[in-house]
Amino acid sequence: MSNSSTATAHPAPSTNGLEGVVAATTALSHVFGEEGKLVYRGYDIHELAGKASFEEVAYLLWVGHLPTQQELDEFNHKLGQNRSLPDGVITALRAMPHETPPMDALRTGVSMLGSTMPGTFDEDPDLDEAIALAARFPAILAAFFRLRQGKEPIKGRADLNTAQNYLYQLFGKEPDERHWQPLETYLVLLADHGLNASTFTARVIASTGSDLVSSVTGAVGALKGPLHGGAPSKVLDMLNEIGTVDNVDAWLTAALDRGDRLMGFGHRVYKAEDPRAEILRGMAERASDPDFFALSKKTEERALALLNERKPGRRLYTNVEFYSAAVLAAVGLPGDMFTPTFAVSRSVGWSAHVLEQRANNRLIRPASEFVGEQGKKFVPIDER
Amino acid sequence: MSNSSTATAHPAPSTNGLEGVVAATTALSHVFGEEGKLVYRGYDIHELAGKASFEEVAYLLWVGHLPTQQELDEFNHKLGQNRSLPDGVITALRAMPHETPPMDALRTGVSMLGSTMPGTFDEDPDLDEAIALAARFPAILAAFFRLRQGKEPIKGRADLNTAQNYLYQLFGKEPDERHWQPLETYLVLLADHGLNASTFTARVIASTGSDLVSSVTGAVGALKGPLHGGAPSKVLDMLNEIGTVDNVDAWLTAALDRGDRLMGFGHRVYKAEDPRAEILRGMAERASDPDFFALSKKTEERALALLNERKPGRRLYTNVEFYSAAVLAAVGLPGDMFTPTFAVSRSVGWSAHVLEQRANNRLIRPASEFVGEQGKKFVPIDER
Repeated sequence: MSNSSTATAHPAPSTNGLEGVVAATTALSHVFGEEGKLVYRGYDIHELAGKASFEEVAYLLWVGHLPTQQELDEFNHKLGQNRSLPDGVITALRAMPHETPPMDALRTGVSMLGSTMPGTFDEDPDLDEAIALAARFPAILAAFFRLRQGKEPIKGRADLNTAQNYLYQLFGKEPDERHWQPLETYLVLLADHGLNASTFTARVIASTGSDLVSSVTGAVGALKGPLHGGAPSKVLDMLNEIGTVDNVDAWLTAALDRGDRLMGFGHRVYKAEDPRAEILRGMAERASDPDFFALSKKTEERALALLNERKPGRRLYTNVEFYSAAVLAAVGLPGDMFTPTFAVSRSVGWSAHVLEQRANNRLIRPASEFVGEQGKKFVPIDER
Repeated sequence: MSNSSTATAHPAPSTNGLEGVVAATTALSHVFGEEGKLVYRGYDIHELAGKASFEEVAYLLWVGHLPTQQELDEFNHKLGQNRSLPDGVITALRAMPHETPPMDALRTGVSMLGSTMPGTFDEDPDLDEAIALAARFPAILAAFFRLRQGKEPIKGRADLNTAQNYLYQLFGKEPDERHWQPLETYLVLLADHGLNASTFTARVIASTGSDLVSSVTGAVGALKGPLHGGAPSKVLDMLNEIGTVDNVDAWLTAALDRGDRLMGFGHRVYKAEDPRAEILRGMAERASDPDFFALSKKTEERALALLNERKPGRRLYTNVEFYSAAVLAAVGLPGDMFTPTFAVSRSVGWSAHVLEQRANNRLIRPASEFVGEQGKKFVPIDER
């Protein structure tokens, strides 16, 4: 390599992460990190969890108010009509190896939905498109979940709500109330969360004038990243490794002595307890068998105490991942379906943000700082 | 609807578009808008176009310097090994209706590539992954292009370069130099362009720790948006409507009198002639039949003169779309394949930005301004 200038061609470029830079104005939801408060369309999450159905919350986020009975009936009817998958989506899922990560299957399934229903998702996203897309998220995941076990997908039922239907399509039987109700509360709690990285991705794509499927496909890809979607299955791995209540202290102490990070504690925005964690604790108690809940509870208590001793002032609290893992495991999901199930809920928020972005759109196109060279002269290949 | 507060639930939220906000530092490329200059890794685009092959430019963007002959031979060998599609990708493309927009087919094909090759694209994107992904863009599009005509896809050939191979896989015969060389220059010119909306999308997704396929799938979705990927096929529509050199003045005058926007002029960043347009003019002359080039040239000249008369001081110049359309039409592509062919080129830039983002990563997560309500109380549905 005779071109001496190549030696300096690799500065280490960085990004500032846009922390604190306002990239969008929203009326949909907001995270009050210092107070540990989450608001959807004017309602504190405590006003909705356990009271409003997931369908009511989807309506609230998409339309702007809680539905009347008549509005909800019409809305549920439309959701019920949008639960089946086009054959092409099943064909694509069937063509995937069983070891494909479910987030990859979901990303492709969502994109394929757009490719097999041309005309449904056009350049002007609206409520009907949001319904057509979000209502099919559980069906895509359930179909892949069954196909990778060598089983056939099951058609959705219009008489079941979203949480019931998801469990029905996954496992092939009507779920117990003890399972679907905690799952429904989980879906309510995760539906939106301000301008996180996947929601921002959806808004950037939507800002180009692209369609809803393109926007939400991008968001699924962003949620796959562990710095955003987290690693909720690792909470389950940790609880399984600990195994019994008697082993909690020894296990946690050894992990902290090794310098390991404990899974399920701390959050970039919340500097108080995540309000979702508090509600999910109750749901985990309801859905889990008593021994597993006792293990979860003891692990949480001791982890918080040990973290407070070893990292005083860091304000580490239980985050949404900790009891999400307990709830999702209790309803029968394996760890690699946890983040995809998060996406089932968040598909509502993503779609709502796309509709909001387009209601008053401007292309999101930030600037970059150029730190590269200039003025190099082309050298023919035989002289390099 | 007895809930009176719903009447005020719809403010019109907006986005500021992040204009002028630095969201990333890059050494890859930069657009000097005032001067009409584009630089890749230290080289002005004029130093590369018509001199460096598309493969050399891909190597330059990904690795940081122009390859030696030995490096290029190894690189071309790897590209040749990565031109065939997994069966699952063909299966998914085959399952799409013929009227599916090619950008939707590409988005799903790219995502499916990740879903059918688990293990190839992991959490740590590198040069081999960039090759494995970008080398297959032309094959995905060519396969869909043939399938929608009822023809079978054609396997790529390791002895052809990217431009030759794309045309070969589209049309089933070895292309003329008069066609593949202008196409190759087009691919060189469009490979990167600073932090545009699709590139930013790829970097946001990559910043979560997600994989290369997720990042680039999101970017394809963003390029689909007309505010970013534009509407290059409309340039062709305009030229076809004008039809003959004699009709240029009358057609343009009538269009401007009606207040129509002329396609192919003006750019958000360039306030001088886009350097790519200048080079593509020469390529269009080479690839087009003489009558069509004469029509394009006359249309450009008269449009610039009329725009200058009617909108003095607006500094409207020919943009990259104008002669891109002429080049791509000349090599035999229909208008709906123009933006997807842009993506064939830009897949190199997207991958380079993902690698650069991850070399020194920080989660990109801006803030939002909350303009919604607070303190609303849940009202049971029968009281709404």
